Amino acid sequence: MAVYTDVSFEDLEVLLGGYDIGVPLSFKGIAEGVENSNFYLQTDRGGYFLTLYEKRVRESDLPFFLGLMEHLAARGIDCPQPVRRRDGAQWSEINGRPAALVTFLNGLSLRRPEAVHCAAAGEALAKLHEAGASFELTRPNALGPAGWRALVDKTADGADGVEPGLRVLIADTHRDLVNTWPEGLPAGVIHADLFPDNVLFMHAKVSGLIDFYFACNDAFAYDLAVMLNAWCFESDGSFNITKGKSLIAAYRQRRELTGREAEALPILARGAALRFLLTRLHDRIHHDPEALVRPKEPRDFSRRLRFHLKVKHAAEYGL
Amino acid sequence: MAVYTDVSFEDLEVLLGGYDIGVPLSFKGIAEGVENSNFYLQTDRGGYFLTLYEKRVRESDLPFFLGLMEHLAARGIDCPQPVRRRDGAQWSEINGRPAALVTFLNGLSLRRPEAVHCAAAGEALAKLHEAGASFELTRPNALGPAGWRALVDKTADGADGVEPGLRVLIADTHRDLVNTWPEGLPAGVIHADLFPDNVLFMHAKVSGLIDFYFACNDAFAYDLAVMLNAWCFESDGSFNITKGKSLIAAYRQRRELTGREAEALPILARGAALRFLLTRLHDRIHHDPEALVRPKEPRDFSRRLRFHLKVKHAAEYGL
Repeated sequence: MAVYTDVSFEDLEVLLGGYDIGVPLSFKGIAEGVENSNFYLQTDRGGYFLTLYEKRVRESDLPFFLGLMEHLAARGIDCPQPVRRRDGAQWSEINGRPAALVTFLNGLSLRRPEAVHCAAAGEALAKLHEAGASFELTRPNALGPAGWRALVDKTADGADGVEPGLRVLIADTHRDLVNTWPEGLPAGVIHADLFPDNVLFMHAKVSGLIDFYFACNDAFAYDLAVMLNAWCFESDGSFNITKGKSLIAAYRQRRELTGREAEALPILARGAALRFLLTRLHDRIHHDPEALVRPKEPRDFSRRLRFHLKVKHAAEYGL
Repeated sequence: MAVYTDVSFEDLEVLLGGYDIGVPLSFKGIAEGVENSNFYLQTDRGGYFLTLYEKRVRESDLPFFLGLMEHLAARGIDCPQPVRRRDGAQWSEINGRPAALVTFLNGLSLRRPEAVHCAAAGEALAKLHEAGASFELTRPNALGPAGWRALVDKTADGADGVEPGLRVLIADTHRDLVNTWPEGLPAGVIHADLFPDNVLFMHAKVSGLIDFYFACNDAFAYDLAVMLNAWCFESDGSFNITKGKSLIAAYRQRRELTGREAEALPILARGAALRFLLTRLHDRIHHDPEALVRPKEPRDFSRRLRFHLKVKHAAEYGL
């Protein structure tokens, strides 16, 4: 949640001069998004979301992120639709930051999704994978195996202070994963961060997918592995196989998993757990006092990782 | 800006069961308000604002704050209108906090109000003073002269670290003000915090007054003195007498100042500057690392205070 960079009414007036979206009625900073400054804008034409990209999002990635949302929205995916400037540009600049306007989506994200929601979200993921297939730009997964080394190093000294034994758990898992990470799985554009926060629901139906700022090209099954981590564990740390079954079955209704993907699921799930463990641990250890967010709990993911390390077969996830 | 206490979709569902305001379409934490957790709620019936009161707002003050907003809204003041629960209660409880729903107001607050906005806001203040006259509950001004002593003491050690000489400036001003503070001025319900953040505009007209959580009973002219501090100084610290004239003249169009009020204006302006200097200084020195807000700049108000200390006559403010 954050507004790192302030946008005054006067800044807003200058900005809106570049767009054809009507007269502003309301403008509020939104306590959402770790990475960026976000604002809700209501005009006489509708609701919009203004994002100012802070240091973690590189301007050179914006054509991918914004282009992807345009591409997906044009193919019927309920995602924020970027609004282009009158001059056709995809983004503006405010107070030295690149800033993009997208349409605002109705819907509410769930804290404790049930199996029915896992199914709906799993189906939405498969649709996203289908619709993204024809998108022409590419972006490597900066938080895939190649990106873990730097985080492993930066968190090594502080890890045991967060949880005794964490340093060894991470080092061992990291070594094993980079040696065994599956290559050549069916791949394309993935969301890479489809947590319940990023799925909006209306009456148990998915009304929107949001926050595409980790989207990249990687194995489709890795996206499913992220969701197994994000949707199917209870708050006591236990894995709910009913939710896993619902998620996987709904995904497979639209996109069948290959034998290699099914086989790879346990290792992909470990990789996804390690990825979120590492970034949360990093943010906990190197907490920026200027950050207007509370660091999330890394131990939620060390617990998940320990679960995945005991999984021998994708059937244990409900496949 | 803040969401200190999280409200899940599940919490929201329980909450909305107690109200007759329709089906939720969207719910977002708002990066606004130093004191409380705020959320924007859109339902199929309209927009609402949900506030969870954190430690600084006492539950025993809620009948005053919420009752005042009801009272003012019923008298044509554009302010958030509290929505009562089906059972008639003025507020609910969420996660151990009292929580109130009010209507959402359109409009935008200005960073750099011009003279025309100062006039509109001055008129709105006079209307507020008129409409509040018949409100029956009372609340003393906790940040009036009686409340300064504790803040002077708590900020004494850190003051010179923020600005050399600040400790003596505060001690001298405080001593002088408590000795000369005017008593018996025309009084009633005042807003006590009517900064540009708290006034919404549409097309240069006031569309709403918000944030009544410092409202109390005190001298009307003190409220005007707060506004002289908050609306009429430029970012370089200079006083803009054109804005002062606009503000005061528009106020006097609806409520004439007495001779004693006019005479008291310089000392009231010093008091208002001291009040905001003290609270900002306190929050700067004793910054709560859990606070999700950046402390505001206390030196803006030491500069204003130094200006007021040289003012001999209300004419210098544009009266």
